[in-house]
Amino acid sequence: MSEIAKSVNVGITGASGYSGVELVKILSRHPNARLKAVTSRTLAGTSLADAMPALTHMLPKGLVFTSSDPAEQAKRDDIDVWFLALPHGVAAEYASPLVKAGKTVIDLSADFRLGSEALYKEFYKEEHPAPELLHLGRYVIPEIIPPQVGDKLIACAGCYPTSILAPLVPLLRAKVLDAEGIVINSYSGVSGGGKKADLLYAYCERNESAKAYGLPKHRHLSEIEEQLSAAAGKPVIVQFSPHLAPMTRGIATTIVAPAHGATLEALYSAWQTAYANKPFINVLKSGTFADTLNISGTNRCDISAVYDPRTKNFVITSALDNLIKGASGQAVQIMNLLCGFEETAGLL
Amino acid sequence: MSEIAKSVNVGITGASGYSGVELVKILSRHPNARLKAVTSRTLAGTSLADAMPALTHMLPKGLVFTSSDPAEQAKRDDIDVWFLALPHGVAAEYASPLVKAGKTVIDLSADFRLGSEALYKEFYKEEHPAPELLHLGRYVIPEIIPPQVGDKLIACAGCYPTSILAPLVPLLRAKVLDAEGIVINSYSGVSGGGKKADLLYAYCERNESAKAYGLPKHRHLSEIEEQLSAAAGKPVIVQFSPHLAPMTRGIATTIVAPAHGATLEALYSAWQTAYANKPFINVLKSGTFADTLNISGTNRCDISAVYDPRTKNFVITSALDNLIKGASGQAVQIMNLLCGFEETAGLL
Amino acid sequence: MSEIAKSVNVGITGASGYSGVELVKILSRHPNARLKAVTSRTLAGTSLADAMPALTHMLPKGLVFTSSDPAEQAKRDDIDVWFLALPHGVAAEYASPLVKAGKTVIDLSADFRLGSEALYKEFYKEEHPAPELLHLGRYVIPEIIPPQVGDKLIACAGCYPTSILAPLVPLLRAKVLDAEGIVINSYSGVSGGGKKADLLYAYCERNESAKAYGLPKHRHLSEIEEQLSAAAGKPVIVQFSPHLAPMTRGIATTIVAPAHGATLEALYSAWQTAYANKPFINVLKSGTFADTLNISGTNRCDISAVYDPRTKNFVITSALDNLIKGASGQAVQIMNLLCGFEETAGLL
Amino acid sequence: MSEIAKSVNVGITGASGYSGVELVKILSRHPNARLKAVTSRTLAGTSLADAMPALTHMLPKGLVFTSSDPAEQAKRDDIDVWFLALPHGVAAEYASPLVKAGKTVIDLSADFRLGSEALYKEFYKEEHPAPELLHLGRYVIPEIIPPQVGDKLIACAGCYPTSILAPLVPLLRAKVLDAEGIVINSYSGVSGGGKKADLLYAYCERNESAKAYGLPKHRHLSEIEEQLSAAAGKPVIVQFSPHLAPMTRGIATTIVAPAHGATLEALYSAWQTAYANKPFINVLKSGTFADTLNISGTNRCDISAVYDPRTKNFVITSALDNLIKGASGQAVQIMNLLCGFEETAGLL
Repeated sequence: MSEIAKSVNVGITGASGYSGVELVKILSRHPNARLKAVTSRTLAGTSLADAMPALTHMLPKGLVFTSSDPAEQAKRDDIDVWFLALPHGVAAEYASPLVKAGKTVIDLSADFRLGSEALYKEFYKEEHPAPELLHLGRYVIPEIIPPQVGDKLIACAGCYPTSILAPLVPLLRAKVLDAEGIVINSYSGVSGGGKKADLLYAYCERNESAKAYGLPKHRHLSEIEEQLSAAAGKPVIVQFSPHLAPMTRGIATTIVAPAHGATLEALYSAWQTAYANKPFINVLKSGTFADTLNISGTNRCDISAVYDPRTKNFVITSALDNLIKGASGQAVQIMNLLCGFEETAGLL
Repeated sequence: MSEIAKSVNVGITGASGYSGVELVKILSRHPNARLKAVTSRTLAGTSLADAMPALTHMLPKGLVFTSSDPAEQAKRDDIDVWFLALPHGVAAEYASPLVKAGKTVIDLSADFRLGSEALYKEFYKEEHPAPELLHLGRYVIPEIIPPQVGDKLIACAGCYPTSILAPLVPLLRAKVLDAEGIVINSYSGVSGGGKKADLLYAYCERNESAKAYGLPKHRHLSEIEEQLSAAAGKPVIVQFSPHLAPMTRGIATTIVAPAHGATLEALYSAWQTAYANKPFINVLKSGTFADTLNISGTNRCDISAVYDPRTKNFVITSALDNLIKGASGQAVQIMNLLCGFEETAGLL
Repeated sequence: MSEIAKSVNVGITGASGYSGVELVKILSRHPNARLKAVTSRTLAGTSLADAMPALTHMLPKGLVFTSSDPAEQAKRDDIDVWFLALPHGVAAEYASPLVKAGKTVIDLSADFRLGSEALYKEFYKEEHPAPELLHLGRYVIPEIIPPQVGDKLIACAGCYPTSILAPLVPLLRAKVLDAEGIVINSYSGVSGGGKKADLLYAYCERNESAKAYGLPKHRHLSEIEEQLSAAAGKPVIVQFSPHLAPMTRGIATTIVAPAHGATLEALYSAWQTAYANKPFINVLKSGTFADTLNISGTNRCDISAVYDPRTKNFVITSALDNLIKGASGQAVQIMNLLCGFEETAGLL
Repeated sequence: MSEIAKSVNVGITGASGYSGVELVKILSRHPNARLKAVTSRTLAGTSLADAMPALTHMLPKGLVFTSSDPAEQAKRDDIDVWFLALPHGVAAEYASPLVKAGKTVIDLSADFRLGSEALYKEFYKEEHPAPELLHLGRYVIPEIIPPQVGDKLIACAGCYPTSILAPLVPLLRAKVLDAEGIVINSYSGVSGGGKKADLLYAYCERNESAKAYGLPKHRHLSEIEEQLSAAAGKPVIVQFSPHLAPMTRGIATTIVAPAHGATLEALYSAWQTAYANKPFINVLKSGTFADTLNISGTNRCDISAVYDPRTKNFVITSALDNLIKGASGQAVQIMNLLCGFEETAGLL
């Protein structure tokens, strides 16, 4: 794909979930992308308009779900970029033939986020489905771990990890933090659990419910620590406590990190350096706090920090929309960069 | 008041807020209490039934709000116990004449929670309104810092503090924890902000909003640290980050504390010792997590813990209803203990 | 069962749903009832405390779910009253042997609400499972269609029907309304759909969603019209539109009924006559409107009305908690009446 | 303003409320509009970015609120179209000088929606602030009551009225309905009450609350009946019951209308004729029901109908986003039509 391409044909595999709807919405509006295929095992034969009643006014005319089939999709000459919005363990099955067929694959799942089979197995409790492709996958958060020209297999960062790595990576790289003793709490909207008939996600079980879950070793810790370690140049271990909050969207993350003598000015300076001209990372003034309400429906991640002289810690807050900057929006932002489009195309 | 009293006459000052409604509800059902007076500056002359439409089926007949007036209330010979459900800074004005008149005062505000004028001024940004009474006030969480026979002025612990001190105090006393490096995140329902015409608490501002606020030095830190220090026998400083969650009730607290070699068994053993026969502290199995949905509408505080071998921290979760175990229910529980009633009377 | 019984032993079949939890909660607090058995096919062997974490502080000690089995339950000599909290079509299977064994059966399902097999089949789309018992069942809303001494099989009215019949039946009986042209809209909390792993009831599907469903012929129409017809002394047909609202509990009903010359005074007079001394029907002043928030968690039904001189209609509003006055609370209220207890026992 | 204009400069007066934020959002994205001025009495001097933290990534650079001032705004030669997002009674004060200065004024308030001073006074309980302009104002719902070339003062239809008139007007015009006995229930999100520090709209007062309000004569009835009468060619009176629902956005309306022999096919045929090629009115299949979740964030109004053979009524449902199709989106759609832009510009 040339960097001067003015448009690109795209397909989505597994578009029946909440991230899938957001992908369809963004790509339907995108000035440079033409959505040519949407596949789903459960929705094959259904029109997009019937499957996504919230988008009927803006959908490409006539698009119908076809059955997901890796081999068939690899043969589609009219499609350059495939987005995979599939569960982990399933995405790899599609990535392999598509990459072999020369397609660009942007994977929203966890299948290519980690550097080793062993780590995958430790956290996902199963064998990696395509270890031979692990070296091809590039983990990407565009502003801090950007894609490279020629990348063919992109592992989009997860929702919790993006909310954590966006504030921390520049601070570790700039040696503002030394990565000891970091404690992270995140509160996620229920859509983070996916579109499922599961009593855990039933309205009456989640309404008025705030609770931690899955402590102390959530799957996303694997990519969080791998990337923090890369940024710090040494192994980093953090305490990460995810929670469910009674709302549809958004992640609010609060990070406590010992300052070890660093100043709030140094912290903000590192952020300003990293995020000048980055339209989707929004550095808030110290003393204001990231709020999920403000980022809902956007591709933005808000970050802010205060210094606590009593404890000598920084307290950092961040917020993003788990379905957009934590999934579909970030995936399209990566497509924009790979294809030489405006970084913000389709995302404002 | 004798310990063998079979019933007691009570009054409530400032019953127009959310905690006030809960107090009226609990006391109307209470087998040993007779609610004889309810006062409010704004609602004077209004019947309880008109002011509290959710309670019309259970209210004492004919009760009408009278105007709040410290001197008048002190003269009421027919009332033994006064509950103060007033803002901080205002409660003290009532406590002084009532205590002098020999009444038992159970104060839900912060006015008598701290040991010193200086600390009050540091955290509440104003002079203490009645420093001469500070020595009379006893800070109480019944299960761990119980009231004493003859107490006349009770400072009920705050909502956040109860959710934090209930799990931590027994661990500090038993030396399971040494109180270094504790990080606390709490997530509160909106009723914690009180019943106010304030845009901050408007439905459309809070719905779908999860956010930290007031970092890094919330007022409740003062009583949290004072009590943790007392339990540990040395000064304790903690990192406390409160958040607003899009729900009406409940606080979910997550505490990270370095284990320094202590085992999860030792932690649970300290809890079992402290909370055997305590009906309102509910120790959950390790691996389950406290959930605000489960404690909503109850006087219970749920607590649980896991040990993280990767970080060598304990991660403790707790949950309580901020209006009940964090305010009105706890106040009635204290009354029960002071009056020699069943601890659970009116609270099951 | 004698009317002077001071206490009664009760069991619940099918207590795993939302109404079941409310039944257990009410009966655990009830001064005259002893909960001796709780059965469930899915929860057999599980302790009540594990199955109902919101009730751990108040449950009878040691109670464990046993497997539901009609024949076994009929043999339990220690149980006098059985509550059936089962789906329609299943309840009848239990009612038959229990009634034969001389038990009092209070059924929360629809199985015995209708007078004829044909009507059941028309609305429930299946054959009635025990037509020979239909004549035994008595449809009850205690304040207007009370149980009779000696009743052995009670069909508790449904949640929508109670919110509709409570305001309308006295008006039809008193000939204030003549039952032509009545239009009813009801908005229900999601718990009305039951405790199910169903995508329809998923948090992200219901949050921010208000919508009509199942128009124009909801199952509850059958009992609504049967009872309205009985009250009017002639066949009544109404337009009933149920809706789902984004909340856990409560039904808000708005009824438009042509006044045909009747006055608002006559309407209120009929209500005052019917509901004087009825603690759970609360007649609101004209100009105030029934609000689900005010009845949540109570056994109360609030009703009010205005007259519109422009259209010559009455507009009536009502609200109740679908799980309590619309299900479990009403069932216990009926037990109280059958057993000669205070009508409000356990329900304030 | 020429119909072939490629772009237009616009200003917003009173952009501090919820509709104002939506207007800014839509106009910031609009391909043909340049937002040049935003005024507010309370926010003068504040940057848009500070006032609208949810929009920071997409706002025109450097825009700052100036003080609202009718005379000053009339002098702004660089602005062609002014949107008024002001309370009723205030908008007229701005409309007068702006219209005199030759500007196009698109008013979101109620000030120019009615045909007579008397009707305004009857429903709004005050004198009309600028009766001399009433004849200039044109009431517009673009699909059914479109603007005309040369219109200088547009009264955008209200949120409830749009949800009611969109389904009904084509049916009255086509004589499918005869307008007798129509009963309308609407269910609105809390943002319909505006951005206010008002206890009525506090989170804890609205959460879990469904209730009717303001019965039986809501202000919007005036424009609803005026337009229905115009469509029917005779006076129409309807029963309209608005409700508050615990959600931020959306109106779900359910309309019962006697069919008087008309068929569902005739109804759908009238809709298909009226709404073919109307991208923002979405006719749903009979048997599906309009859902606020599906239209949230869009400029769309969904409509559907069933026929009830038992009552011989049609039951019609509609849903729209009160802040977009019920306010800001509709205003921009009108601007598009007046300026000769694509009807959907900025609105997909």
